[in-house]
Amino acid sequence: MRRIITLTTDFGLKDHYVAAMKGVILSINPEALIVDVTHEIPPQDVFKAAFTVRNFYRYFPRGSINVVVVDPGVGSKRRAIVVKTDYALFIGPDNGVFTFVYKELSPVGVFKISNPRYFLPEVSSTFHGRDIFAPVAAHLSLGVAVEDLGRRVKKPVELCIREPEVREGEISGEVIYEDHFGNLITNIPGTLLRRDAVVIVDGITIEKISTSYAEVPRGSLLAIVGSTGFLEISVNQGKASQVLRGKSLKVRVILPAT
Amino acid sequence: MRRIITLTTDFGLKDHYVAAMKGVILSINPEALIVDVTHEIPPQDVFKAAFTVRNFYRYFPRGSINVVVVDPGVGSKRRAIVVKTDYALFIGPDNGVFTFVYKELSPVGVFKISNPRYFLPEVSSTFHGRDIFAPVAAHLSLGVAVEDLGRRVKKPVELCIREPEVREGEISGEVIYEDHFGNLITNIPGTLLRRDAVVIVDGITIEKISTSYAEVPRGSLLAIVGSTGFLEISVNQGKASQVLRGKSLKVRVILPAT
Amino acid sequence: MRRIITLTTDFGLKDHYVAAMKGVILSINPEALIVDVTHEIPPQDVFKAAFTVRNFYRYFPRGSINVVVVDPGVGSKRRAIVVKTDYALFIGPDNGVFTFVYKELSPVGVFKISNPRYFLPEVSSTFHGRDIFAPVAAHLSLGVAVEDLGRRVKKPVELCIREPEVREGEISGEVIYEDHFGNLITNIPGTLLRRDAVVIVDGITIEKISTSYAEVPRGSLLAIVGSTGFLEISVNQGKASQVLRGKSLKVRVILPAT
Repeated sequence: MRRIITLTTDFGLKDHYVAAMKGVILSINPEALIVDVTHEIPPQDVFKAAFTVRNFYRYFPRGSINVVVVDPGVGSKRRAIVVKTDYALFIGPDNGVFTFVYKELSPVGVFKISNPRYFLPEVSSTFHGRDIFAPVAAHLSLGVAVEDLGRRVKKPVELCIREPEVREGEISGEVIYEDHFGNLITNIPGTLLRRDAVVIVDGITIEKISTSYAEVPRGSLLAIVGSTGFLEISVNQGKASQVLRGKSLKVRVILPAT
Repeated sequence: MRRIITLTTDFGLKDHYVAAMKGVILSINPEALIVDVTHEIPPQDVFKAAFTVRNFYRYFPRGSINVVVVDPGVGSKRRAIVVKTDYALFIGPDNGVFTFVYKELSPVGVFKISNPRYFLPEVSSTFHGRDIFAPVAAHLSLGVAVEDLGRRVKKPVELCIREPEVREGEISGEVIYEDHFGNLITNIPGTLLRRDAVVIVDGITIEKISTSYAEVPRGSLLAIVGSTGFLEISVNQGKASQVLRGKSLKVRVILPAT
Repeated sequence: MRRIITLTTDFGLKDHYVAAMKGVILSINPEALIVDVTHEIPPQDVFKAAFTVRNFYRYFPRGSINVVVVDPGVGSKRRAIVVKTDYALFIGPDNGVFTFVYKELSPVGVFKISNPRYFLPEVSSTFHGRDIFAPVAAHLSLGVAVEDLGRRVKKPVELCIREPEVREGEISGEVIYEDHFGNLITNIPGTLLRRDAVVIVDGITIEKISTSYAEVPRGSLLAIVGSTGFLEISVNQGKASQVLRGKSLKVRVILPAT
């Protein structure tokens, strides 16, 4: 069965780890279509994994199987889970990597992965990506029911996500993610903003919300609603993370009275 | 329809950006075969993108669809284009990334991408890779005609490519690209050279054109016609970019009288 | 024919090199399923390539074709070979990258790649990955017999692999590989160990073999049998390579009398 299995990990690209997972998947379902999301989540950074999942899953077809292995507790008693939603399946450790899935999709069923029938015959204590998550994903792609994996989990782990404070005419948020281009993504949703909003970050005032990088000169700071839907602080053809590096990353937005 | 769509971007590999493009493509054409060329073009480096395109496209089957997103002007008035040739299709911003395609293939038809029917329903101002280029590529892979995308563009943007100066018995060129191995690729085509040519770079004289790295001792500089067809300055099992780093990168070739 | 072709190289990801190989393969066999193992083997590091091959090949289905291009001798007289085993095919330079394959699989037949019929029409002197190994892999995936490629090779090159010294109650080994997480993988097989073994590395004594990272506090050193089957020195949610950096990497294991 041709079915999409995406992989999001902190394994990096230099070792054999990702390939071992792919080999396991293809050994079980040779028709699986494996898509790398990223393997460069910083080691053990559960929030970045969670935020990455939020940002990509909706762009894949319904029914995709999303495997997320950022797993500082591998080998301990942390649970392994499958999250079933009406949009997609999510497989990974129960450590908060699916926090945004719980927020955005419902109803969801969360199932503990405990049936060794769907694991590799030998399970190591350090690499459940290869020995548990990959084979479970492959079996699910062949039509195994999530109920076969284990019992329902009532309270899966959720990260505490700081929401911006919204008061009359003012929003206080913070930078939550820095991307490859040095764009600083905040937790302030673009839906709260207007074009004439003023953004204050690190003592610098940005006088409006831009609608393209090119609205400011090359090298200048700007504020823009980025492709994740959140306010971002950017530099036209440069890196905001270099201009504001090492400084406070609180962000304040003033909405002038209309 | 199984059709190859290649991706060349400056998005890096740590974020969700590349995956979002792949999800969009597979949502429209589940049979598309997506191949990453690279996502490590330095941010906004249009020349490196153009040179990369030159170096890979001929090795893919006819009819491949090559998407190139190195797009410092995203969200501004720069055009988005599709370049139709009798070898392949090329999709990206009209900023010079297809300069070598125009030089090497003809006739070509260049079409503005303006028909929103082939875009995602919501188009962000910062991520046309996901919202425009990916869906357009997917629709083209399903057989949409380039003429349906928009009007013909008469003068697409071309980069000014410096050609080497060829005088009697002497060629003056320069290094245009440094690869992962530290090889310094020049703009001097191997077809202009002979085995007995003498290469002068940064005050160092290399007495011949080698035909393999192993012709010189480990750690020594050599000149060789590389796999792109251009003269390269290399170090056997080392990095020419470290030996010559921070210095002038003009290259002079003397062709002895025969 | 749908058949898996894996790629393991030291090409890095920033250039067009890997994509050129993929294009060549897909031009010959459009149904090939290409899987990247890694392209971040350090340049010319034949041992790391060999160890990587050891660690991934068994997880892929039988009949996979594994291409390994870490090839400091490209263009010299080093042989190009195909290794045929009853598990998989291996293609690469004859420089030791298949050392562990020879140790683990038998009987194997090793064949010199010399029949230019299966090469690209023009063979460069610096990029046999594209011009020889990729097309040969693609032709093999279509059913070409290894015997068609060239003559049998009697003594392929093998790396000298240092085995640990095992004396009564004591094992002396060394670190042979550092992974992305900073885990230090030794050459001591887990099968030689017991839970109560004591590990001494760099003057530090680790009092037991752990069965999960979480057995020690965050930031502490531990010894564990890792997913490759060898003893590893790790730090729970940290990098052993940073704690022990720049120091001796000999590892001694004491097995208490039982």
